[in-house]
Amino acid sequence: MDNQPVYGGIEAGGTKFVCAAGTGPDDTGTPERIETRTPKETLGEVITFFVKHPVAGIGIGSFGPLDLDPASPTYGHITTTPKQEWRGADLIGPLQEALDVPVVLDTDVNAAALGERTWGAGKGLSDLVYVTVGTGVGGGAVVNGKLLHGVTHPEMGHLLLPHDLQRDPFPGDCPYHGDCWEGLASGEAMRLRWGCPAEELPPDHPAWELEADYLAAGIMTVAVTLSPQRVVVGGGVGTSPGLLPLVREKLVALFNDYGAFPNTTRDMNDFLVLPGLGDRSGMLGGIALAMEAVAPSE
Amino acid sequence: MDNQPVYGGIEAGGTKFVCAAGTGPDDTGTPERIETRTPKETLGEVITFFVKHPVAGIGIGSFGPLDLDPASPTYGHITTTPKQEWRGADLIGPLQEALDVPVVLDTDVNAAALGERTWGAGKGLSDLVYVTVGTGVGGGAVVNGKLLHGVTHPEMGHLLLPHDLQRDPFPGDCPYHGDCWEGLASGEAMRLRWGCPAEELPPDHPAWELEADYLAAGIMTVAVTLSPQRVVVGGGVGTSPGLLPLVREKLVALFNDYGAFPNTTRDMNDFLVLPGLGDRSGMLGGIALAMEAVAPSE
Repeated sequence: MDNQPVYGGIEAGGTKFVCAAGTGPDDTGTPERIETRTPKETLGEVITFFVKHPVAGIGIGSFGPLDLDPASPTYGHITTTPKQEWRGADLIGPLQEALDVPVVLDTDVNAAALGERTWGAGKGLSDLVYVTVGTGVGGGAVVNGKLLHGVTHPEMGHLLLPHDLQRDPFPGDCPYHGDCWEGLASGEAMRLRWGCPAEELPPDHPAWELEADYLAAGIMTVAVTLSPQRVVVGGGVGTSPGLLPLVREKLVALFNDYGAFPNTTRDMNDFLVLPGLGDRSGMLGGIALAMEAVAPSE
Repeated sequence: MDNQPVYGGIEAGGTKFVCAAGTGPDDTGTPERIETRTPKETLGEVITFFVKHPVAGIGIGSFGPLDLDPASPTYGHITTTPKQEWRGADLIGPLQEALDVPVVLDTDVNAAALGERTWGAGKGLSDLVYVTVGTGVGGGAVVNGKLLHGVTHPEMGHLLLPHDLQRDPFPGDCPYHGDCWEGLASGEAMRLRWGCPAEELPPDHPAWELEADYLAAGIMTVAVTLSPQRVVVGGGVGTSPGLLPLVREKLVALFNDYGAFPNTTRDMNDFLVLPGLGDRSGMLGGIALAMEAVAPSE
């Protein structure tokens, strides 16, 4: 179609906001990276971008936690984030007011799950989990073909895990839950534990074995709870070369041939995969969110 | 309506099958308890029951794991259960053949979640989790108003948990995963750890504090993954007097005022509850399954 409407996608992260206007992975123009400063400054630049690139609707995949209850007076706001300046920030209001188009908000990981399901590694699946392991750890999901929200939205990074303090005395750095999944396995936890950023740790460093154990344990827990057809792992740490094969191996051992969970390397190669959209899952998920809101597929 | 059709509900457990014919919690006739022996003997008695009490359809909530993939040649069969005689048992075929009515199968905990959602403590909620803690540990869920299946069905009893071996040297008794949730917190694990059945442990026994810790950790993990509006806890151990208040207390501390999760005792009293249907959630869930299959509400 020549006149296919153009949609806006925003991946709103703690260090940058990525904005794009387009119709899918082959048509996003040149996405713009905007530094995350104060809500006023950053959202101001986002508005400027979309004034230059008019769209029929905007989807935002954002860091959180978020208030996603349409009946709430703080609907569309960021809630208890450790990032002081963004606590209570309204993400929907300013854009909707300035640009006068529908604006939809979801978590960065739910947006990424939707992006991967629409165009990426989970294309057409009804039940998909997207896990990101970067500065933090998070998970989003498509269940029965729809994004998982429940009473609010998943916060999978905060699930609890086995933690052998003799092997790993690092206490965990989640300000809320100490040694939850994010507290043990995020890029920030790796930096604090080993004294340097994850990307500087050589492939044979014991950090990777430990990281793979935490990822396998977390993914097993998510898998037995949600029973997904596939789990996509993204994020700067999650996509580190060599990490996913190690996680797959450990996950086969953890499932231990139980029920219908993947019990062979071949099944596991199909079950646990890298993003099909590279680092664009969230931004493209934003476009998919906007599409769904303006022109629902069902 | 005078001519409302009557449906059959079966709670299929490792020690007994409970069968009933009716239309809801106020009309189940006298449910019959049939001992779980071999599939042939037990299913034979189930058939005899429904020959005496004709129904328009039958819903079964069963122990598992189950093959719930309609495209599979072993659809409706029990798969990798430790109960040798029931491994590979076909639950749907014999009933459908003998009684010539639609037979629907789901997990005992999914059936219980549906029962509680239809008539019990989760009435009308869109997102509900049902956790049972009895001989084993399991969880079922309603997500977006529908039972959660994904690629197979949840096996929440097998999620992984923090396990402090100094405090609790019991290694866990799950034949597949050792110290998973079920391996640490089931009635069977309690019996093995303390040397007597849970119901014989006095209220001030340290067993209950430990059990509450494992239940709180598991429920927190399920809650951050599924984001339910409410969690119903059933089962012989789960409904032990005094246990749930202890779990609530620990869960408030674990969530630690994060995101939209319950952060006060009042919220928690509403979030974590006993079954509204007592020990009939699974059997009534079977009736609800049959109703949905024969006369879908949407």
